[in-house]
Amino acid sequence: MHLHEPPEYQCPLCAIIAGSEHGQTTVWRDSLSIAVVSRSHHPRNAGSLLLCSLQHFENIYVLPREVGAHLFGVSQRLAVALKEALLAEGISTRQHNEPAGTQEVWHYHQHIVPRYTGDSFYTERPVPMALEHRIEFAGRIRTVLGKGAP
Amino acid sequence: MHLHEPPEYQCPLCAIIAGSEHGQTTVWRDSLSIAVVSRSHHPRNAGSLLLCSLQHFENIYVLPREVGAHLFGVSQRLAVALKEALLAEGISTRQHNEPAGTQEVWHYHQHIVPRYTGDSFYTERPVPMALEHRIEFAGRIRTVLGKGAP
Repeated sequence: MHLHEPPEYQCPLCAIIAGSEHGQTTVWRDSLSIAVVSRSHHPRNAGSLLLCSLQHFENIYVLPREVGAHLFGVSQRLAVALKEALLAEGISTRQHNEPAGTQEVWHYHQHIVPRYTGDSFYTERPVPMALEHRIEFAGRIRTVLGKGAP
Repeated sequence: MHLHEPPEYQCPLCAIIAGSEHGQTTVWRDSLSIAVVSRSHHPRNAGSLLLCSLQHFENIYVLPREVGAHLFGVSQRLAVALKEALLAEGISTRQHNEPAGTQEVWHYHQHIVPRYTGDSFYTERPVPMALEHRIEFAGRIRTVLGKGAP
C-alpha cells in the first residue's frame, strides 16, 4: 500500500548497513536498528542522525509494529546522547512518508536532530557534510553511548 | 533532566484529557495515549493530529519506554487513517523537545501531519482551526478508525 520504491532500487541505507563507509559513520547498531550521522544537515544542526530499521521497509505503513516500538527506545537513547555529545539544547525528530511527505530515501528512517537556541532549522536549507566530519561526529556520539570504536 | 515546565503549569493537553471539549476533537484514546485534532495546522495540512501520552510526561527524555513503544503502533494506525479520511498523499511526523527544540506545550506529543503534493508545510506559518472544524475533522477520522462518536 502506498509504496513508491522503483524497481531495482539501490538503497543507500542498505548500502551503509551492508558495510560501505566501514561503519565509521554508524553510532548505533543492534538486531533491529541502525543509526548513522546524516549526510546532510541544517547549517546549525550538525550531527543530525538517521535512525533506520536494519531490515529494508519502505515507510511507516509497512514497518512491523515491534520494530517501530523498538526504535522508540533507541531514539530516546540517541536523544540523550546528542544532548551530551553535542551539547544540544533540544532535540527534534522527523519522519517522512511518500513523495508528497518529503520522503526521498525509500527505507524507513527517522531524523534525530540536535537543536540550539535560534538555530535555522526551519528557515535554511540543508548542507552536505563531508565524510571526514561525519566520522568525527560519529566518534563523539559513540563515545557517549559507550559504544567505542566500530 | 532538561525539564522546562514552570511551577503550577496548567497543561492544555491534560485539560483535553480531563474532558474539556467533551471529547469531540478526540480521534483516539486508550489506556496509554490520546490523539486529538490540532488547534493549528499549516494552511494546506488541515486535520493534523497531536498524539500524546495519556499521563503527563514532559518530553522524550522522561517518557517511559513502554509508552513510547505503544505510541508507535498508534501513530501507524493514525497515519493510515489520515490517508483514507483526508485523502492524504503522504504523512510526516514531528516531535519536539525543549524550548530550543520548538517545544511549546510541556506534555509529550507527536505531530502527525497529512501531506499533499506541493503543500506549504515548510514555507508557511500555521493557522488556527476553529473548534467546529476540528470537531468535523475528528468525526471523519474517527469514522475511518471505527471509533464512532465519542
